[in-house]
Amino acid sequence: MSSQLGIEVKKDADFSTWYTQVLKRSEMLEYYEEVSGCYIIRPLAYNIWQEIQSFFDSAIKKMGVEDTYFPMFVSQRQLEREKDHVEGFAPEVAWVTKAGSSDMENPIAIRPTSETVMYPYFSKWIRTHRDLPLKLNQWCNVVRWEFKKPQPFIRTREFLWQEGHTAHFTKEEADAEVHQILELYRQVYEDLLAVPVIKGVKSEKEKFAGGLYTTTVEGFIPTTGRGIQAATSHCLGQNFAKMFEIVVEDPNALANSEGKEAKKLHVWQNSWGITTRSIGVMVMIHGDDKGLVLPPRIASVQVIVIPCGLTVRTSEEEKKRVEEKINDVVKELNSAGIKAKADLRDNYTPGFKFNHWELRGVPLRLEIGPRDLKNNQTLSVRRDNGVKEAIPLDKLTTCIPETLNTIHKDMFEKAKKIYDEHVKVILKWEDFVPALDGKNVVLVPWCEQEHCEDKIKEKSSRSNTEQEPEDDKAPSMGAKSLCIPFEQPKEPAIVPGETKCISCDGFAKRYALFGRSY
Amino acid sequence: MSSQLGIEVKKDADFSTWYTQVLKRSEMLEYYEEVSGCYIIRPLAYNIWQEIQSFFDSAIKKMGVEDTYFPMFVSQRQLEREKDHVEGFAPEVAWVTKAGSSDMENPIAIRPTSETVMYPYFSKWIRTHRDLPLKLNQWCNVVRWEFKKPQPFIRTREFLWQEGHTAHFTKEEADAEVHQILELYRQVYEDLLAVPVIKGVKSEKEKFAGGLYTTTVEGFIPTTGRGIQAATSHCLGQNFAKMFEIVVEDPNALANSEGKEAKKLHVWQNSWGITTRSIGVMVMIHGDDKGLVLPPRIASVQVIVIPCGLTVRTSEEEKKRVEEKINDVVKELNSAGIKAKADLRDNYTPGFKFNHWELRGVPLRLEIGPRDLKNNQTLSVRRDNGVKEAIPLDKLTTCIPETLNTIHKDMFEKAKKIYDEHVKVILKWEDFVPALDGKNVVLVPWCEQEHCEDKIKEKSSRSNTEQEPEDDKAPSMGAKSLCIPFEQPKEPAIVPGETKCISCDGFAKRYALFGRSY
Repeated sequence: MSSQLGIEVKKDADFSTWYTQVLKRSEMLEYYEEVSGCYIIRPLAYNIWQEIQSFFDSAIKKMGVEDTYFPMFVSQRQLEREKDHVEGFAPEVAWVTKAGSSDMENPIAIRPTSETVMYPYFSKWIRTHRDLPLKLNQWCNVVRWEFKKPQPFIRTREFLWQEGHTAHFTKEEADAEVHQILELYRQVYEDLLAVPVIKGVKSEKEKFAGGLYTTTVEGFIPTTGRGIQAATSHCLGQNFAKMFEIVVEDPNALANSEGKEAKKLHVWQNSWGITTRSIGVMVMIHGDDKGLVLPPRIASVQVIVIPCGLTVRTSEEEKKRVEEKINDVVKELNSAGIKAKADLRDNYTPGFKFNHWELRGVPLRLEIGPRDLKNNQTLSVRRDNGVKEAIPLDKLTTCIPETLNTIHKDMFEKAKKIYDEHVKVILKWEDFVPALDGKNVVLVPWCEQEHCEDKIKEKSSRSNTEQEPEDDKAPSMGAKSLCIPFEQPKEPAIVPGETKCISCDGFAKRYALFGRSY
Repeated sequence: MSSQLGIEVKKDADFSTWYTQVLKRSEMLEYYEEVSGCYIIRPLAYNIWQEIQSFFDSAIKKMGVEDTYFPMFVSQRQLEREKDHVEGFAPEVAWVTKAGSSDMENPIAIRPTSETVMYPYFSKWIRTHRDLPLKLNQWCNVVRWEFKKPQPFIRTREFLWQEGHTAHFTKEEADAEVHQILELYRQVYEDLLAVPVIKGVKSEKEKFAGGLYTTTVEGFIPTTGRGIQAATSHCLGQNFAKMFEIVVEDPNALANSEGKEAKKLHVWQNSWGITTRSIGVMVMIHGDDKGLVLPPRIASVQVIVIPCGLTVRTSEEEKKRVEEKINDVVKELNSAGIKAKADLRDNYTPGFKFNHWELRGVPLRLEIGPRDLKNNQTLSVRRDNGVKEAIPLDKLTTCIPETLNTIHKDMFEKAKKIYDEHVKVILKWEDFVPALDGKNVVLVPWCEQEHCEDKIKEKSSRSNTEQEPEDDKAPSMGAKSLCIPFEQPKEPAIVPGETKCISCDGFAKRYALFGRSY
């Protein structure tokens, strides 16, 4: 392969260059030179997306959600039907205005999200409460032509996601689903990607444009000290239902009425999405100075088996025995459901191969040489912490799955410990910015007022502008609210009407998580 | 549900209205009113696409193909790099020219196919013959802004497909893969969708723009007598490799040379794709006057179980026993891997439910009532031919899978017989147009010259224009070559230098399949 080997900068020294090098040299991603802000998701990364799809799609199907596909195009008229919504998205919408050599009569938008594409049909398909709940999902690409500095996976002009859109008869049902989905997002991050997240609800300022409330799982990038929105599950309330006339007849009113037209009730709607950003978060958190570190459950190669200890004096016969054993080991592991692979390339040294697969983040390496055959064992080397252990060759199918599970657990716990250490409970404004500067996010008593949030952003910004920093070395932007966590600090408890907001004269309602963020 | 029940026209009487009604009322598809030529693929149809994906993706992964995702945008400069290619696609390209409220500096095309998106990176990633073969595939949407009359699934401005793109060191390897993939496409059609196809190679006029040769599986819609291209597997030769400079060093030259730069060899490339058109072909072939008829292997509900024989005199207890039995049956079938579902809705009659599920094409219905419980049996009714059979309740998990297999086999064989009957070997021009008018496609001795193909089209067109007919009732367009089948008629054999072309003065090379087509 033509890519350069090895990472030339330290993660801590130049995070932004490190991130780009890891992605490119591990062959996860390629920069797309033709269109800025677009990237090529290569097989190593796309496979992770497919693992996420497979887990999430089967989980939502159990909840009765059905997959569908709506067109990627939306007319200006539909896009503008919900006022707050269009205000939120209009500045980033890409417009198709020409087909072949002809100008179109009306420009057509590419979906930035599909509420306005889908809901006219919700209105058409939903007539009675028996048509509820309607639960649809689609896996697709969306386009948001952002003018902020793009970053692979994290902020891209085209990205892949799933978007779920559901309609319910009661608010209670809608609320319950919002939290069920949020829990699935937590599982994607924590149980697949080994990435810890904090669940909470967004502030009014940060909620989905046009929705009622937004729940979120928030991640954290320790190297930059910045928070990152990981996935969101919105309750849209009845707002879109009103704009798009999604109504059912009131079943109770029907029973009471005598011939007059039954009362119409607006449905309650949710929408929820997780994107390929998740892959970038995982890379940023687990990667190290040698390259990628992949959590075992999403790695396309979980175990790489490499012949070692072969020298110029090794007989052809012995070499053949080693290679045969390696092929047997791979076969045995594969039949046990483990994604194992042999690297028997002739023209590379073991050391070269170690680097090659470390760069690509393979969770576990097995080394097998002539001496191992004699001792009936193999040396296993963990990618995440370098720990080496001899494993008897006849216990592979019990030992290796255990080791892979331990690797997942250790990676998650390590990341969780770091996140926990960087969430600082701050009670006085003087400590707010220094805590951010120390690469933390902060939990603060907050009044939950929008103007106060604006003020906090302004006061915590070094440059007093809203500009994104040029790169991660200069986090000069202000802090915004990341979420109001469901799990609140116990001590010191907020006393209603007594505890003051961290920033303004109002009273604090709850602790909110603030931070500089992506 | 709000959709109207039942199909109001006969398939034979008004095929075009029938097709639309079947798709809409079965809830397979909805017309998207905002953008002409775009449609909503609803869960019943999207599930079929997912079944196709699941089969095909696992088959190509076994061949070493890896899934990837490239951006949907391509610059004008790249798009125009291969001359024949851009000439083929340019008239249908959709252009993005605005983002938010700003005009873009350079318009950006939405991919009509991804050769020009991907191959600059093939050039970057491929350096030596050890980087070969490179085998990538992506599942995505593409846009071809056709101005011909759109038809759901069959001709749509946005559609879903997979596109495989591979590079090989030798022509032999590339050729072999072209045919391996074509065989998988045959399997998708014949073994999943129960749709017979004919394998062959496209004429020079009909081959992929910029490629070396195109192989195809060609289907047939008996009701209209028109052929339909079902999926294509192209060998691109070295043409794109030359335009995009995809080269490797000659490994032999390396060994011989003494310090001078090694000779560069262009790689051999293939591309291949199957689209959501396949769903439309399946509907057109199997559907009947009652609605959809789904082949069992792609049906999301394979067996619907309906309580029957309950009257006003049936006791609540007995009714409960029937429903419990039905739930048990469904559970038992589900554990045996059969997609069964109960319809226990209270407010509908059995007759209503029969129609409901027949419209939706469910392959097998089971009826269970009080008398069936006593006799320990259930009445099964096949959707494809209406055949009824009593099945002992304790033999469901052996009988039902057999019946489903039989249904698939019967559906395929019925369609195959009809296709075979409508492929007419024609040896004289006078019989050509009458055969087409009789709703056939024709196998004719042909010289394989492009100007002759143009002439045939002209001579077989009633109106002598190239316009599409307004609908399927008026197939006035001329015939084009569908393919040159790999399996040639044995009698009468074509004698080189002796057998005349069906249309011109030249000698025939092989039999070609001509027909009016979609």
